Amino acid sequence: MNSFNFYSPTYFAFGRDAENRVGALVARFGGTKVLIHYGGGSVVRSGLLDRVKASLDAEGIDHVELGGVMPNPRSGLVYKGIELARRENVDYILALGGGSAIDSSKAIAAGTVYDGDFWDFYSGKPIERALPVGTVLTIAAAGSEGSGDSVITNENGMFKRGASGDAIRPEFSILNPALTQTLPPYQTACGITDILAHLYERYLTNTPEVEVTDRLIEALMLTMIHEGPRVIEDPDNYEARANIMWAGMMAHNNSCGVGRSQDWNSHNIEHELSALYDCAHGAGLAVTMPAVFSYVMHHDVMRFAQVAVRVWGCPMDFSHPEATARSGIEAFRRFLTAIGMPKTLGELGGREEDIPRLVDALCNGDGRPGSISGFVTLNEQDCANIYRMML
Amino acid sequence: MNSFNFYSPTYFAFGRDAENRVGALVARFGGTKVLIHYGGGSVVRSGLLDRVKASLDAEGIDHVELGGVMPNPRSGLVYKGIELARRENVDYILALGGGSAIDSSKAIAAGTVYDGDFWDFYSGKPIERALPVGTVLTIAAAGSEGSGDSVITNENGMFKRGASGDAIRPEFSILNPALTQTLPPYQTACGITDILAHLYERYLTNTPEVEVTDRLIEALMLTMIHEGPRVIEDPDNYEARANIMWAGMMAHNNSCGVGRSQDWNSHNIEHELSALYDCAHGAGLAVTMPAVFSYVMHHDVMRFAQVAVRVWGCPMDFSHPEATARSGIEAFRRFLTAIGMPKTLGELGGREEDIPRLVDALCNGDGRPGSISGFVTLNEQDCANIYRMML
Repeated sequence: MNSFNFYSPTYFAFGRDAENRVGALVARFGGTKVLIHYGGGSVVRSGLLDRVKASLDAEGIDHVELGGVMPNPRSGLVYKGIELARRENVDYILALGGGSAIDSSKAIAAGTVYDGDFWDFYSGKPIERALPVGTVLTIAAAGSEGSGDSVITNENGMFKRGASGDAIRPEFSILNPALTQTLPPYQTACGITDILAHLYERYLTNTPEVEVTDRLIEALMLTMIHEGPRVIEDPDNYEARANIMWAGMMAHNNSCGVGRSQDWNSHNIEHELSALYDCAHGAGLAVTMPAVFSYVMHHDVMRFAQVAVRVWGCPMDFSHPEATARSGIEAFRRFLTAIGMPKTLGELGGREEDIPRLVDALCNGDGRPGSISGFVTLNEQDCANIYRMML
Repeated sequence: MNSFNFYSPTYFAFGRDAENRVGALVARFGGTKVLIHYGGGSVVRSGLLDRVKASLDAEGIDHVELGGVMPNPRSGLVYKGIELARRENVDYILALGGGSAIDSSKAIAAGTVYDGDFWDFYSGKPIERALPVGTVLTIAAAGSEGSGDSVITNENGMFKRGASGDAIRPEFSILNPALTQTLPPYQTACGITDILAHLYERYLTNTPEVEVTDRLIEALMLTMIHEGPRVIEDPDNYEARANIMWAGMMAHNNSCGVGRSQDWNSHNIEHELSALYDCAHGAGLAVTMPAVFSYVMHHDVMRFAQVAVRVWGCPMDFSHPEATARSGIEAFRRFLTAIGMPKTLGELGGREEDIPRLVDALCNGDGRPGSISGFVTLNEQDCANIYRMML
């Protein structure tokens, strides 16, 4: 196991009606003027925005709002949010929504107190300071409610990049599983896929002797495999939603990823898809992961065999471990199909002729060195092969 | 799943030589005058105390010290620590050691800024304020490095009680697995047992639909079953020590216990043993748990069957689930024996004639209502039966 630091100081309020505590929580953490940042109609239609405002009003906390966050949140709205936060002397950013609203809020929080262009943070500059961020989560997926990560799409070229830092970890996050019950099955399935991706990206490691984090990752995968189909079949199942919601947070606050190298190539390969085709991130991952795993499997057959046996229940073929490894990837692919996820690039709107452009953005965009690194370093040819496997 | 709040703001610095960062961490969290609190000779002999003082000196942080914490830490030393901390205007408590040093430090931290008798907190008064606490952990066992819990033995009657609160969660904890390599095998095994007890006490729940926390608990149990025997056989195995150390923290910071009722009857039953006989807490738990589990198994046979199958690898006997449940308890007992833990009350110094006194302290001591509650409510007769099963 490698040495590491772990710091997850987010206060989680979990359960039915927890959103009504938002005013008290902002007050507890010292906020006096809040920017409420959210996406589209569902937060308004469901009455959530009104309930949140009423809770802030009850504590005498002033607020302004900025809606319009899109899935794959964009740099343009971040600039708007920064301008608004500065103009209104906002001292607290409150995200209502899923990973997109939260990631956009984190970018605004860091950008508001920074002299330069906020994109610097998404090009590698460490985030030293940010306004505090709170969240009211409505989609179990990104894990952004408990992480110090944020991903934004740069509209100047349509590519996605991430930034990380303790300064943008939410101070509090409100997790009410009932708020996720109105999600359409496709979006629910995209969230399930994203959570499983966060687990696989940590599982694919080159660090030996990581039994504790291997086991924790497997535990969360097993939870998703059990609860995912239940919630697709019965969207109103609060209990299944609750288990998924906590699993989604634990999958990405890194308590199960500490002390080990991680992969993140599948995420990087997918980010070009959702940046170019504006497909759902989870759907893009569903197409990407089986291709990547099949491509890199021979780098560590026993690791893929381990997840196949421990998580997917495949029998171990001791004479042919690679057959077991492959069975696990196939079981994962069948699971994704069963919950309604796409299998091919075409279903995402992708086209073979775009592959050179995807590969170039992936491997060379924004100063990258002609390859991406992780579990295996993948050069342009590798990435082109992988995109082609998705056709 | 029940509603819950979860807040674990401890900063963890994990890895070789991490103790040399203690000065920088105290400075980061604003400490200027530190009380270093520790137990006996090993912290001194190993040079750890000197390294810690050098690290504080390098940051210009003033310090005083109080050694002498015993296993099953006592109220007398807490009073001394409070007096010293007040006299010296200490603003930071630094624990060096295992759960005993940390629990005693937490009691001093709460008592120093409280007008009344610190024991009030161990009789149920909520802890609202405390000096900040940092820890340098030398034993993987109690999980106190990541929890808001503390257990102290009242010398006025020799009984143990616990106190809890966010105010006594450590601000930072330094976890260097190499510091645990010098532990004698018996103490290592006691730590392994304590960690497994923290997992079982959370596993035994009456809350339905808790797949995510069930799975996380099982993951940590599987880790202990894999790594425990390795470290008993090869005490210098850094990797096994590292996996156990992170598992021990995760077992007790409650990320795997949220949203579910918990048991803690085994802990309560054991606390009377270590209070009266001054045996190691882990050794007491090794004798206590199999007796308790056998006694309460019929309350929820399927729960015991589940842990038997998923954790202990027992085959499920679908015609006789209680046989599977019993096999799991037997497998646990064999595991404990294999790592060198005792099986009987006699090995702890216990005597049959003490049982009435143990039962009385357990069920009636310090205002208890003639019974203890948890997974199953146990009255005086039940507790006497359980102590007798340990003979």
